[in-house]
Amino acid sequence: MIIDFQTDPSRYRHWKIEIDGDTATLWMDVAEDGGLVEGYELKLNSYDLGVDIELNDAVQRLRFEHPEVKVVLLRSAKDRVFCAGANIRMLAGSSHAHKVNFCKFTNETRNSMEVAGAQSGQHYICVINGTAAGGGYELALAADHIVLVDDGSASVALPEVPLLAVLPGTGGLTRVTDKRKVRRDRADVFCTIEEGIKGQRAADWRLVDDVVANSKLDDMLNQRCAEFAGKSDRPGNAQGIALTPLTRSLGDDHVRYSHVTVELDREERIATLSVTGPETAPPESVEAAHELGDQFWCLALARELDDAILHLRSNEPEIALIQIKTQGDPDQVLAHDAFLAAHADDWLMREIGHFWTRVLKRLDLTARSLVALIEPGSCFAGTLAELVFAADRSYMLIGQFEGENRPEAALNLSEVNFGARPMSNGISRLETRFLGEPEALEGARETIGEALDAETAEEMGLITFAYDDIDWEDEVRLFVEERASFSPDGLTGMEANLRFAGPETMETKIFGRLTAWQNWIFQRPNAVGPDGALQRYGSGRRPDYDFTRV
Amino acid sequence: MIIDFQTDPSRYRHWKIEIDGDTATLWMDVAEDGGLVEGYELKLNSYDLGVDIELNDAVQRLRFEHPEVKVVLLRSAKDRVFCAGANIRMLAGSSHAHKVNFCKFTNETRNSMEVAGAQSGQHYICVINGTAAGGGYELALAADHIVLVDDGSASVALPEVPLLAVLPGTGGLTRVTDKRKVRRDRADVFCTIEEGIKGQRAADWRLVDDVVANSKLDDMLNQRCAEFAGKSDRPGNAQGIALTPLTRSLGDDHVRYSHVTVELDREERIATLSVTGPETAPPESVEAAHELGDQFWCLALARELDDAILHLRSNEPEIALIQIKTQGDPDQVLAHDAFLAAHADDWLMREIGHFWTRVLKRLDLTARSLVALIEPGSCFAGTLAELVFAADRSYMLIGQFEGENRPEAALNLSEVNFGARPMSNGISRLETRFLGEPEALEGARETIGEALDAETAEEMGLITFAYDDIDWEDEVRLFVEERASFSPDGLTGMEANLRFAGPETMETKIFGRLTAWQNWIFQRPNAVGPDGALQRYGSGRRPDYDFTRV
Repeated sequence: MIIDFQTDPSRYRHWKIEIDGDTATLWMDVAEDGGLVEGYELKLNSYDLGVDIELNDAVQRLRFEHPEVKVVLLRSAKDRVFCAGANIRMLAGSSHAHKVNFCKFTNETRNSMEVAGAQSGQHYICVINGTAAGGGYELALAADHIVLVDDGSASVALPEVPLLAVLPGTGGLTRVTDKRKVRRDRADVFCTIEEGIKGQRAADWRLVDDVVANSKLDDMLNQRCAEFAGKSDRPGNAQGIALTPLTRSLGDDHVRYSHVTVELDREERIATLSVTGPETAPPESVEAAHELGDQFWCLALARELDDAILHLRSNEPEIALIQIKTQGDPDQVLAHDAFLAAHADDWLMREIGHFWTRVLKRLDLTARSLVALIEPGSCFAGTLAELVFAADRSYMLIGQFEGENRPEAALNLSEVNFGARPMSNGISRLETRFLGEPEALEGARETIGEALDAETAEEMGLITFAYDDIDWEDEVRLFVEERASFSPDGLTGMEANLRFAGPETMETKIFGRLTAWQNWIFQRPNAVGPDGALQRYGSGRRPDYDFTRV
Repeated sequence: MIIDFQTDPSRYRHWKIEIDGDTATLWMDVAEDGGLVEGYELKLNSYDLGVDIELNDAVQRLRFEHPEVKVVLLRSAKDRVFCAGANIRMLAGSSHAHKVNFCKFTNETRNSMEVAGAQSGQHYICVINGTAAGGGYELALAADHIVLVDDGSASVALPEVPLLAVLPGTGGLTRVTDKRKVRRDRADVFCTIEEGIKGQRAADWRLVDDVVANSKLDDMLNQRCAEFAGKSDRPGNAQGIALTPLTRSLGDDHVRYSHVTVELDREERIATLSVTGPETAPPESVEAAHELGDQFWCLALARELDDAILHLRSNEPEIALIQIKTQGDPDQVLAHDAFLAAHADDWLMREIGHFWTRVLKRLDLTARSLVALIEPGSCFAGTLAELVFAADRSYMLIGQFEGENRPEAALNLSEVNFGARPMSNGISRLETRFLGEPEALEGARETIGEALDAETAEEMGLITFAYDDIDWEDEVRLFVEERASFSPDGLTGMEANLRFAGPETMETKIFGRLTAWQNWIFQRPNAVGPDGALQRYGSGRRPDYDFTRV
């Protein structure tokens, strides 16, 4: 079965979007029989990857299709339950790889809700009625504000450790300590109480922001929505653009979009991801760009790249390495970057820029080796040069391949490479790259406007290796074959460490420390073994633990 | 077999300390037949926990016994090999728990070498002759300066990923990117080249600091030693103090020292760690404190506590929870803190303070639940109050136990609680605790000099719970029983996340991200399974990998 990350509201089974002026309500109403695969029922608004694919789509559409929406209310349409978290039978029945990828994608979606407020003034307010347990409370934690409806039964809980022997691994532990800054001993208490914490105590411990009686809920929400809307700089009267279905053809050994092609060599375990630069100059005006809508190259490519990455992660687990190539006119890429920068005060251009940040972060967080191959005719310029800096290594051809006559390989930097598309660690890929050589960062900035050839790029530390056509094929093949022969687990751990030097943020903590511990626990018999907590959950039998501490 | 972390140079089998003026040389000369357990030979200066226990002892002694030593040369006494890293057959034959604890201890020892320079001007210079591979190069990375002797064969390497399917997990990946700030693509190349990198290229990539021909080595070392000694503020002519053997009795259900007792309840899986405060006032003068030497309470207690923690970690794997108690006169504890502070410019008092920082970090990093029980007659004051803030939770008695007449429980803060004993994250335990309430931190500081009773301490957020004697026993028992019933893996992951809110440092990266990924990999069949790389190493058979990326 292919997991498809594309959907649209007409196909949602679990969510409903209602728009009322500057406020949207995102209703969670999970269909029990709507699981992505057989074998479990999505009771009590519990979720699986399919539910989260719809949520991710909704979060994305709200930003692009609804510029007028300044506040998103995240609510449950079910009575007495907000969300019971990730479905436990789904987890118990999933492979290790599926669990890990599921958590990564849900984490990315939670982050995208969080940055919507910070980056473009679309603030999430979560309204908890009934119980918000585990992943349910972690969903709430991604909001800018949490309202707990105090009906005597409403509670927030992270019962994973006592109940399931796993972590609240979708950001929960990190957001409790680092976002909501709950005192560590209270966090310890909270994370070990199965039934969670109710009412005023939840507010006193900063687990929620407001506790309100049902009778006063509407007034409270009106007030909070007005407050957050007042802080938003989103345009009140702009027209959104439609995110139409991607043009995509899925074959046995390829996925083809308009501007992206993925070719799979399953025997060698390599995917070649090729990106095509813009074929025309940028639109003449920002209005013209709006008219292009999701066909505007900057946006169309970002959407395709995002889908291609998600597709590879979930549907091609044996692919070891992604080779990234581009083809096109570097000047046109730079012209598009310049267009986005010139219209940075336009809401849509801003959204497109932020979307690129998220797509590139998704690449950084992809557990596949990444190599950029910079060849004649390529257009690794500005935004597309970020693909080079996101890669674990880059190879650049000196001169031409014999018998060819395409423009020589060049690397072109633009302002966009110096802070506009930060990594999860909060700084640019180039700044991360040059932590030990700040003067090289300055040197790189001075080349803006120049096309750098392979030898110059190598000398400036912008690429890993430059080879001429005599060595190119052997060197690249040697690397690719060797890489594909290594243990994928070792590579995953190595890349997760080497890619994120320098400062740490809540995001890097979530994807670094929290995720790594959860992945460890997802391998431990106490959680996933036949007598472990996940398998025995709901059976009436207590798990049988090995009590050795390690 | 009990693993004993106490040793002294007369018993070393693997190291030799030579002192020459302000320079010490720490010669690594691992005895092949000197493994801690049977089943492997420690060839090529490869090491096991026993080798590292001696190194830890040497590092500690150099600080206390040799105030005159400003530079420590870390060298191999073997020809053409510096150190081959952790012994692979040892790793292959070890339990998961042993691997994890071994890595943690070696990491702590590497950190202690690193801070010796930063904190007290005892700088490590590593001289690499021959190969420094894996843990061998990670040992070098802990030094302040690395000299590579360019004999044509000398190299540095992190071959773990290609050769063993595990990570360079003793700080290697983190120190390459964050300490030596090697460019990430070069780090990627370096970490996938089995044979490592030699000569000038190692210096160009910042993997080493100097590359020098054998004939010029002595001159170079003289020069570097003089440079580092010139930066040191250690006294040239002071007299060290001897670290004499600890007074310790190991019983079936206890370990007793002079100021520390550990009582084990194996059925309940609880250790009670009791600390006794000083029985006398501090010495009258700093000279008198020097005369007390390692019998000075501040130092004696730190050594005993350190040993008790290490003993529990390695020898009592089924203990789930450590209950921390104290008994004694809080005023005397505070007087000792004040004494250390008043003589902070004395090298020995400074060493003792820094040692406390390391001991408390060791507690923070201990994978056991920690609870402080603050009862009548206790002395959780100043330095000992840090035990409360290191604990996952604290319980404090209101009033008296029936029929007793000890002084009521009190918590006493001193200046030492506000930055002098930072956690691995670089800030104090109280600052970490109050990240969300900076005003509470200020409020706490204003209580210096006051004895806080249980209700006040609870109100100020300094403890978790205050109970009177009617509820005390039930509440504590309930907590302890519940804690011991949870999956130890879930608790380890939870505690590793909740304990370290706020900023990140190289240390927290090593113990958080790097260690967690390594622990995950240490559970993966590609590394540790019967056909995995660790088992097949040296067999002539290639490992059989599952190539699924997760």
